[in-house]
Amino acid sequence: MEPTQQITTGTRLDPWIDAYAARTQGLTTSQVRALFAVASRPEVVSLAGGMPFVSALPLDALADTVARLIRDRGAVALQYGSGQGDVTLREQILDVMEPVGIRAHPDDIVITAGSQMALDLVVRVFCDPGDVVLVEAPTYITALSVFSSYQCEVVHVPMDDQGMRPEALREAIASVKASGKRAKLVYTIPSFHNPAGVTQGPARRAEVLEVVRSSGLLMLEDDPYGLLGFDDSVPRAIRADESEGVVYLGTFSKTIAAGLRVGWAVAPHGVREKLVLANETATLCPSNFAQLTISEYLATQPWFDQVKVFRDVYRERRDALLESLSSLMPAGTTWTVPGGGFYSWVTLPHGLDATAMLPRAVAAMVAYVPGTGFYADGQGRHNLRLSYCYPEPDRIREGVRRLAGVIKDELEIADIFGSPEAVAGREGPAAPEPNLA
Amino acid sequence: MEPTQQITTGTRLDPWIDAYAARTQGLTTSQVRALFAVASRPEVVSLAGGMPFVSALPLDALADTVARLIRDRGAVALQYGSGQGDVTLREQILDVMEPVGIRAHPDDIVITAGSQMALDLVVRVFCDPGDVVLVEAPTYITALSVFSSYQCEVVHVPMDDQGMRPEALREAIASVKASGKRAKLVYTIPSFHNPAGVTQGPARRAEVLEVVRSSGLLMLEDDPYGLLGFDDSVPRAIRADESEGVVYLGTFSKTIAAGLRVGWAVAPHGVREKLVLANETATLCPSNFAQLTISEYLATQPWFDQVKVFRDVYRERRDALLESLSSLMPAGTTWTVPGGGFYSWVTLPHGLDATAMLPRAVAAMVAYVPGTGFYADGQGRHNLRLSYCYPEPDRIREGVRRLAGVIKDELEIADIFGSPEAVAGREGPAAPEPNLA
Repeated sequence: MEPTQQITTGTRLDPWIDAYAARTQGLTTSQVRALFAVASRPEVVSLAGGMPFVSALPLDALADTVARLIRDRGAVALQYGSGQGDVTLREQILDVMEPVGIRAHPDDIVITAGSQMALDLVVRVFCDPGDVVLVEAPTYITALSVFSSYQCEVVHVPMDDQGMRPEALREAIASVKASGKRAKLVYTIPSFHNPAGVTQGPARRAEVLEVVRSSGLLMLEDDPYGLLGFDDSVPRAIRADESEGVVYLGTFSKTIAAGLRVGWAVAPHGVREKLVLANETATLCPSNFAQLTISEYLATQPWFDQVKVFRDVYRERRDALLESLSSLMPAGTTWTVPGGGFYSWVTLPHGLDATAMLPRAVAAMVAYVPGTGFYADGQGRHNLRLSYCYPEPDRIREGVRRLAGVIKDELEIADIFGSPEAVAGREGPAAPEPNLA
Repeated sequence: MEPTQQITTGTRLDPWIDAYAARTQGLTTSQVRALFAVASRPEVVSLAGGMPFVSALPLDALADTVARLIRDRGAVALQYGSGQGDVTLREQILDVMEPVGIRAHPDDIVITAGSQMALDLVVRVFCDPGDVVLVEAPTYITALSVFSSYQCEVVHVPMDDQGMRPEALREAIASVKASGKRAKLVYTIPSFHNPAGVTQGPARRAEVLEVVRSSGLLMLEDDPYGLLGFDDSVPRAIRADESEGVVYLGTFSKTIAAGLRVGWAVAPHGVREKLVLANETATLCPSNFAQLTISEYLATQPWFDQVKVFRDVYRERRDALLESLSSLMPAGTTWTVPGGGFYSWVTLPHGLDATAMLPRAVAAMVAYVPGTGFYADGQGRHNLRLSYCYPEPDRIREGVRRLAGVIKDELEIADIFGSPEAVAGREGPAAPEPNLA
């Protein structure tokens, strides 16, 4: 056999490797993806995924709603629709946004295939390669994928337990401008942050907004969890106080069902026109089938009562998580206390590395998302995200018990062989200040 | 009042105008969009839109299918799913592609929010700004939007009544390479072409494939209409004879329902991996709700019998169109004779301009799409696309009667004042050779 043949044997060569666009360099498979395939086995307690607990929905009522829709308006529900989205649903979205304080016109809304698509389109419309997007440290993992796929540079802004720090944002923007780069967007998740689990109070929101206003940048406010506050109060959206400088992203994934893939953007007039054209280019139109299902559901079901059901479900699970963290975690472990949403952000003690620890956690039948995925710059080694949205409370407690055991084992090893920090010889940048539980 | 104020008064200024990405220059509102708003009035016969006639679907059966799905598997149907798409539906898609001769593995398939999204993702994965895409002349209007939004350069390849001409394709590729530009994709719609209404025979497909193979380019085969042939034969897909060099795009929009927004790509291994990552970045995952609805429908309903129902519906409408064109159109007007699909491509007599004529057609209560929209380079002034998919046969005949009257009036004006061609002083490039009816 020829040597060249030996080299190629068993290697799956991609003949198109030289043909891909430069932007595909940002399209990489997550290192932990293979591990998550293992972690999806039922015996593993997954505190990793952010799946809403859709089993809490009234399935019989929803089934009747969809069946009636197809029988009575099938010719519309099964047809192409408007690139901007169904006008009746856009009117109903105004009601859905009333609790967060947003007043708008149906024309201001663009409906998309999930709010992920809206995020993708906003970046498509605004960002040339090399443009800078400022984001919280840490931030939503798949937002980073979008910024990367449009070849943006990401600058992380430190957080505290009130979210993004205004002074740090001001300095980061000044630093970007001084470097000659072009900043375009400030991407923020002010309510029940993914993954940090913190929420900006009203004063903090005003301060951050003022910094963004004075910088001339566009704010992209991502608000998937705004209605899921556990004390039944709803944080006022930043968009409620600034209509020209903010694009607001909303979704039905957490208040109705993620499987419908319906989200929306609220955008200033000129931006909205561009988003509609970009939406038509990307998908022709959002699904009438999914949109009209939601529209019927909103019109005929007590949708806000169902949001309260979800709040109760997630509050109970958040409590199970926090109680078991408090009673089981070794000293030095800290975590944020979420007032709503799906996540708590954990900082490991003594420089333990959450990515290195993950295989051992999965072997112990518990899964989480390591912190590094939520940063574009290598921060987060000592952090991990715990999701309490999907498992039942008893499973959450069992998962934390297993995780605490893994951390204790890691600490013992570090005691014997020296801390990984000492071995690695470097301290990671500061993670957001946790609320100590 | 200051002159500068007069200039800006009444103008809706966009404060973000300087912030948009360069690619938004390709995002422009169609000139005819405003006219189509008028044309959507019920008294206008629209031969413009490509809407499938979804009222031919068995709505009661579909309603039962969806209701059962939500009751029995709601926790899955309403949840996030895989970025590649539901594995059972991917297996069923293999059966759906059996008539076009494609043999593949479920792993080769990526399900997307309509095949438009798959088209967008393929271009996202392959094309840097300035890369060249070769397409038929004319081609699908919203494919041009995708190429434009990724800042591709489009090169049109002349067609005849067998579709793209292989020698012309070879010359175009050589010309692109000689110019120092980088060609990436050959985008083609070999079956029941939109808008040209022609179909490549087997020998022509083999010739085109051979040219693409020898060029080292990727072929992007778009096949929304392949199962909708009027003589009950199904053209064999090019992908059936070449698995490594072709990405094939399929859709349920014309065989089931466009409002579900479910399409797919079949791609070589390395390309498929990139498409899954790009799909996750753009939308997280395709809708489980829509995918599982289709999966249930395919599993429990006689879906191929329904395709035959659609064929019968569209054949009758195609016949109504062709008969009325033959009996009513003034001499010198020519059109293609589609063997399937939704469209016929018309060439106007004596240099009449289809874009200029459109307002008069709409005033006469008939609408079409002017030919220029199907080209990136200004061709198509003397052409228009007629769709027979949506209106009932009697409405189609009435629409053609109105359109023939408009064309006759235009010809009379040209006789009196001289042909618009003579006035404009230039002849447009050759349109595809029509089959004379």
